Amino acid sequence: MTASRHALDLPADHPFTVHHLPYGAVSDGPDAPPRLAVRVGDHALDLASFAADTPWTAALAGPTLNAFLELGPTAWAGLREHLTQALTDPRRRAEVEQHLRPLTELTTHLPLEVKDYVDFYASEQHATNVGRIFRPDGEPLTPNWKHLPIGYHGRSSTIVVSGTDIPRPVGQRKAPSDPEPTFGPSIKLDIEAELGFVVAGSTPLGSPVGIDDAADHLFGVALFNDWSARDLQAWEYVPLGPFLGKSFASSVAAWITPMAALEAARIQLPAQDPQPLPYLTGSGAGLFGLDITMEVRLNGEVVSRPPYRAMYWSPAQMLAHLTVNGARLSSGDLFASGTVSGTQREQRGSFLELSWNGTEPFTLPDGSEHAFLRDGDTVTITATAPGQHGSTLGLAEVTGTIRPAR
Amino acid sequence: MTASRHALDLPADHPFTVHHLPYGAVSDGPDAPPRLAVRVGDHALDLASFAADTPWTAALAGPTLNAFLELGPTAWAGLREHLTQALTDPRRRAEVEQHLRPLTELTTHLPLEVKDYVDFYASEQHATNVGRIFRPDGEPLTPNWKHLPIGYHGRSSTIVVSGTDIPRPVGQRKAPSDPEPTFGPSIKLDIEAELGFVVAGSTPLGSPVGIDDAADHLFGVALFNDWSARDLQAWEYVPLGPFLGKSFASSVAAWITPMAALEAARIQLPAQDPQPLPYLTGSGAGLFGLDITMEVRLNGEVVSRPPYRAMYWSPAQMLAHLTVNGARLSSGDLFASGTVSGTQREQRGSFLELSWNGTEPFTLPDGSEHAFLRDGDTVTITATAPGQHGSTLGLAEVTGTIRPAR
Repeated sequence: MTASRHALDLPADHPFTVHHLPYGAVSDGPDAPPRLAVRVGDHALDLASFAADTPWTAALAGPTLNAFLELGPTAWAGLREHLTQALTDPRRRAEVEQHLRPLTELTTHLPLEVKDYVDFYASEQHATNVGRIFRPDGEPLTPNWKHLPIGYHGRSSTIVVSGTDIPRPVGQRKAPSDPEPTFGPSIKLDIEAELGFVVAGSTPLGSPVGIDDAADHLFGVALFNDWSARDLQAWEYVPLGPFLGKSFASSVAAWITPMAALEAARIQLPAQDPQPLPYLTGSGAGLFGLDITMEVRLNGEVVSRPPYRAMYWSPAQMLAHLTVNGARLSSGDLFASGTVSGTQREQRGSFLELSWNGTEPFTLPDGSEHAFLRDGDTVTITATAPGQHGSTLGLAEVTGTIRPAR
Repeated sequence: MTASRHALDLPADHPFTVHHLPYGAVSDGPDAPPRLAVRVGDHALDLASFAADTPWTAALAGPTLNAFLELGPTAWAGLREHLTQALTDPRRRAEVEQHLRPLTELTTHLPLEVKDYVDFYASEQHATNVGRIFRPDGEPLTPNWKHLPIGYHGRSSTIVVSGTDIPRPVGQRKAPSDPEPTFGPSIKLDIEAELGFVVAGSTPLGSPVGIDDAADHLFGVALFNDWSARDLQAWEYVPLGPFLGKSFASSVAAWITPMAALEAARIQLPAQDPQPLPYLTGSGAGLFGLDITMEVRLNGEVVSRPPYRAMYWSPAQMLAHLTVNGARLSSGDLFASGTVSGTQREQRGSFLELSWNGTEPFTLPDGSEHAFLRDGDTVTITATAPGQHGSTLGLAEVTGTIRPAR
């Protein structure tokens, strides 16, 4: 039995069976040019070589997925079918294995040139928790919250691939009780456990994408950690929203799971009351949730299991809202869901909520107490979802370690 | 005398003499590939051909300035000197004129691939007016306003070149007195007269650009109109800031004036009290304002003359703040100043302020009353500034016409 034969002999419960097939970019080292790949088990299948002489060859030749994203849903389905057939045909094993490389030999890269990046705020429980923490005397949800998916633009160039170290950001903050603002490394560094959505297919200015067409522009998902400096954010964000509290780094998983792999994970949305305006409901086809369960680990210990199934707004609703004013889409746009939090304490997707803004530190099995992030802390987010044919997918992890401020 | 000879015989008060030399991108028509150019009078000098066999040839070969921006201040100064020498040497007229084309024959294009886009809020008078209109019972300025240049990220892909028609955006709004949100074309469509700053020189994650180094990353300026749907914005913007009220379109002038052309326009900033934190002051070299006077025309009639000299925060302060948390810069980033408004009514840079949220319509010389924008309205912003050798520069206009919602 050769080493390469093992590559396709995956146990049924492996997170990256042929029912998953996420896309990424790999190279022989950090400075070598990235090549597009699809992940099979613990191997990367080189796409430029394996999909040579297909209709998608040219679009797969670059270091990012952007050109392939622009080809649209028929091409995405075509390549997935091409890969699935080859990978499940025992007679083609030798051929396939020529294009496989073990991931242990490879460096992963951001597989997108990220165009516009938007972060939503689609978890009712997260928005409620944040409202209770920051506006204890008011209604936890703002009056608009159940009428539209609240979102804001972030800084595309600060999106980094999983595994990138995160320097602690520096900046200005002032607690209400401080007489003057002070300056220094953030003392309330946090995570936000989110799901990112990769957008595909350019649209012209002034042409909204209706909710029933949103699926044509949703290519896939990737776990996302929107690192947040709560002290910077609290001082700066009124009236124009978060800025430097967010724009220092956001991490995205190295492997993008196609929406096609998540068909078995589609579930009903939670009930929406009041009924949203028609542009946010359409025929109803866009009103699906995703049965994805996330796990957040701090230094290897699980601290939370945020349930994506509890999210209030659907991905199609977020996309339709984003373009209803005529905003353009570009292949490579990315939007994230906002922090995923469930109703239970152990389902909260940020340390702000887990520690109730630092007032209720939580304890790890080793006895250590935690509120916000310390230098050297590593946060890793993973997730599982029902896959095709009874399989269970494991979404690729997003991980990062905090380094001291420079 | 040949027609081409006229091209360089410019009156001293021409807005585009050899003391100006802004950069743009032109083509033979909307679908022809853009080529980089510098504007001289009413002609475009083709850069790829004129600057062939110089150190900057390769960086000038593309359809955008991004590669040239990445070369840095020495290259920018070198090309400007190269152009100035050639254009002021009478013996080189014939040579120069071979590379000149009248602008009337050409289409202008966005000369940048816009990377991250940030909009600031740097006019004290504008922020005060907006505070008075939207929060009449509170302090007009938020407590953070004089401690940091407030800003937020916008949607890069919606930035369009001057002359592009602006479809009226559609969306959701709810006035406080409305029982429920409604949906439709914006009924409070507005402008924001701003100055945009083109950022150059990539920086790595985690490496702030100090205020005394900011000039190395400020390539030039362009007039900017941040079209705003006030009804959409008012309903959506709490708590995460403006989103769809801004992201449908922002217009930028077709010609970017290099900072080097604005040396005579540098003036002292207005006094800053309280003293900002040290990262926003540095040695003091970054604390300069710009003596630029803008004119806003509605359908050809001047409605406002916003004074850029009144802006509270300097461009270098905005850039230093933007990166202090470790955010990356990319060549092609763009930040805008926010609406420029002076203390007088006729110096207000938005219709929101000019009409006091529609309650005090203003009258044009033809007797027509105006508050927010109607379909068919054309808004054009121009500006002048002191140039070198006693000249007066005219910044390239930014103009756009409102089209009915689709």
